[in-house]
Amino acid sequence: MAYELIASEIDKNKTRFIERLREAVEIPSVSAEAAYRNEVFRMTDWTQANMEKLGIKCRQIENGIEDRPDGSKLRLPPILFGHLGEDKSKKTLLVYGHLDVQPADIHDGWNTEPFKLIEIDGKLFGRGSSDDKGPVIAWLNAIETMQALNIEIPVNIKFVFEGMEESGSTGLDEILEQHKEEFLADVDWTCISDNYWLGKEKPCLTYGLRGLCYYAVEISAPKQDLHSGVYGGTIYEPMNDLVWILSRLTDLKGNILVDGINELVAPLTEDELKLYDQIEFDVEAYKQDVGVKTLTVDDKKKVLMNRWRYPTLSIHGIEGAFHGPGAKTVIPAKVVGKLSIRIVPNMEPEQTDALVVAFLNKLWKERGSPNKFRAIPFHSGRPWVADFNHPHYQAGARALEKVYGVKPDFTREGGSIPVTLTFQNLTGKSVMLLPIGACDDMAHSQNEKINVFNYIEGTKALAAYLLELAHI
Amino acid sequence: MAYELIASEIDKNKTRFIERLREAVEIPSVSAEAAYRNEVFRMTDWTQANMEKLGIKCRQIENGIEDRPDGSKLRLPPILFGHLGEDKSKKTLLVYGHLDVQPADIHDGWNTEPFKLIEIDGKLFGRGSSDDKGPVIAWLNAIETMQALNIEIPVNIKFVFEGMEESGSTGLDEILEQHKEEFLADVDWTCISDNYWLGKEKPCLTYGLRGLCYYAVEISAPKQDLHSGVYGGTIYEPMNDLVWILSRLTDLKGNILVDGINELVAPLTEDELKLYDQIEFDVEAYKQDVGVKTLTVDDKKKVLMNRWRYPTLSIHGIEGAFHGPGAKTVIPAKVVGKLSIRIVPNMEPEQTDALVVAFLNKLWKERGSPNKFRAIPFHSGRPWVADFNHPHYQAGARALEKVYGVKPDFTREGGSIPVTLTFQNLTGKSVMLLPIGACDDMAHSQNEKINVFNYIEGTKALAAYLLELAHI
Ligand SMILES: [Zn+2]
Ligand SMILES: [Zn+2]
Ligand SMILES: [Zn+2]
Ligand SMILES: [Zn+2]
Repeated sequence: MAYELIASEIDKNKTRFIERLREAVEIPSVSAEAAYRNEVFRMTDWTQANMEKLGIKCRQIENGIEDRPDGSKLRLPPILFGHLGEDKSKKTLLVYGHLDVQPADIHDGWNTEPFKLIEIDGKLFGRGSSDDKGPVIAWLNAIETMQALNIEIPVNIKFVFEGMEESGSTGLDEILEQHKEEFLADVDWTCISDNYWLGKEKPCLTYGLRGLCYYAVEISAPKQDLHSGVYGGTIYEPMNDLVWILSRLTDLKGNILVDGINELVAPLTEDELKLYDQIEFDVEAYKQDVGVKTLTVDDKKKVLMNRWRYPTLSIHGIEGAFHGPGAKTVIPAKVVGKLSIRIVPNMEPEQTDALVVAFLNKLWKERGSPNKFRAIPFHSGRPWVADFNHPHYQAGARALEKVYGVKPDFTREGGSIPVTLTFQNLTGKSVMLLPIGACDDMAHSQNEKINVFNYIEGTKALAAYLLELAHI
Repeated sequence: MAYELIASEIDKNKTRFIERLREAVEIPSVSAEAAYRNEVFRMTDWTQANMEKLGIKCRQIENGIEDRPDGSKLRLPPILFGHLGEDKSKKTLLVYGHLDVQPADIHDGWNTEPFKLIEIDGKLFGRGSSDDKGPVIAWLNAIETMQALNIEIPVNIKFVFEGMEESGSTGLDEILEQHKEEFLADVDWTCISDNYWLGKEKPCLTYGLRGLCYYAVEISAPKQDLHSGVYGGTIYEPMNDLVWILSRLTDLKGNILVDGINELVAPLTEDELKLYDQIEFDVEAYKQDVGVKTLTVDDKKKVLMNRWRYPTLSIHGIEGAFHGPGAKTVIPAKVVGKLSIRIVPNMEPEQTDALVVAFLNKLWKERGSPNKFRAIPFHSGRPWVADFNHPHYQAGARALEKVYGVKPDFTREGGSIPVTLTFQNLTGKSVMLLPIGACDDMAHSQNEKINVFNYIEGTKALAAYLLELAHI
């Protein structure tokens, strides 16, 4: 009965909740651009004020000074901690979200002013509407609704809202680490709403993300770039070596040829395989979205597994070679190939780096070029996979079924959300991604939006999830 | 006896000739930069005034208006035609040179003001000192000296001096074509002094230049760049296809694998082979200049032949991929590989294009990728080779031996000087390159210089050459 009351109350407050999101979108809290940095502080204060109205105790944790690429210094937005309820008999949920947004400019192809919330055909357009202001405010809407109806929130809730997520979450890990024994000590579960449904209709819970290992392959010889007319024919050209090396890392279909990599991948379990059967995913629509007629695999399960649970290798480009339009007849003296591998359990970055560097060195020996060669591991991030059979996920699934009338898909994603792993490591507890936006919300792109349906039903979903946490 | 008189008179006038070059270098006639365009006009007028003092009849041929890349319009410098002697009983020499220079800025690493002529240790530093103001003025010095000594110049001389050479010789070919039946009709030989000795000590005559065929290999698939985390593992990535294709065009040593290309190359004749024996060329110094320990071929003859008389293929870079420093995890949607082949006799650009495009298409078929593929010939220029046994070259060789006491090397160059081919085609007569500068003059680079020795002995060489033309 509690849920039905809440759902109906949320519907009644729809207009007010949209107005609340409008206020937030009108604060252009772009973390990447120095000119907007003050707006991230404003957005943090605005959020704190809205949280305090709900009785959430807030504090801003100073995050120090950022050294900008141009040599200037800029104050970093504080991390906003919040705390609702201190009932020792209740368990504690940690909620994470981010208050900053991607840059946006109407001249980049936006159909509406990016920092206004414009409703068209049930869609609320505006930067941050879906990533991640909509979800953050949905939490506040859900709590406000339960308080208004005097429905007890069955858990204590802690909040971590940051303002630098779109710029690499500068300082966040350090601050969380410092508060591991304090603020984070009693957390029982973490819930993050900062990703997307697999499609446009069916909700999901996300239990896995791939990690990343990035590499540079540097080949050099002459002291400086050479004129191909004057020197061509006598020099071992580094570009020729580089394309030879890069062409030997994958086969036509992208299968990784690096010795030992595929052997590291965790075997597919029966349990996991079953999940894929039920997942709603339209391969044809996917192809159409991407704009290709053929995929390297064509069966729904294989497409999803290749995106989520198998490693993939991509060549991103070459530094140091001619890259402009038109024609230039240079022999580049030093070229650096950039590639990365999306890693999955049980690939550890250290293992992966060792295998990749060994393979690249083996190839180089086989090549027999007299040029200088270096295989350089750049940075890496571990993959994350949670136990989707954990009661926490079951509670999430029950909540979503209640709201949407359908069992959610259990999904993974191919990219990374590093903070997920941070929370899992620091709390040692279950972390769950509970997205409320649809796959076509265009986060990071022009014309970002959240559907009114997703925003309002998402608010219900978060409330339903809070209720379900009572039963774990 | 005539030569000895001339040589001694030139030595006496050394200071004055250097002052003349100084005046020219102080006119910053940079053709590429709009702000300096007026200086190219000034340099043209300065040259005309100096020519007219010698009785050379001059006229400036209007060259119209240039559409600049930024959309603005700029008047092109006129082509300066000159004519000395109209004796029907004499043959006619055509002399080409250019009055414009490369850009130069002291902040780019010049040790001296680029638009001042500064003498240090027998070297005259300054932009254009060697490319090509020194050689142009050496012609005038030589003529002035012969006139002062009342030594008859045994040929009529025509001059073509342009002001856009460093910017692609805009308009020159059209103007020369228009004057084919008139100004160019009675030309018997063409001499160009706008290249360099092979080394620092020994003079040379240059009888060949390679041509160029430039290609783009375009591979595309998705509508737009993709996130490698989200899409990696399902897409046939265009970069993977491109490095595969590019890696199959040459072997380790740069030998071209394109079917049919090597069969087009003119066979090496006994005569030509003999030339290489005598050429003074230090392979070790070449390696050191380039900064490599190993060349694809190590014998002097092979090094020179690979630079001059065999085709070579270079991969210049990739457009559309990530090319910056740092790490970016993009799957580029459309990538364009850029490559070129330096072509030699008897490769015709049309034949070469057909073979390259057919080979690329064959490779693509073999690859079996579903992506979109286009092999695009960009632009091309024919190679040029003259008959080094022609009496014109023998006259040049005798002149150089007289001045330097050593038989000159007969060289080719690996790059292109397109106007060479234009003169050969329009006059149908022998064209010869007679450089006076040393290999380390740093044309187009910081700290361009001409040695006092090269400038003064070069003036003698041009006079000796004029005398020798009487004996053909
Ligand atoms: Zn986000
Ligand atoms: Zn984002
Ligand atoms: Zn030149
Ligand atoms: Zn030049």
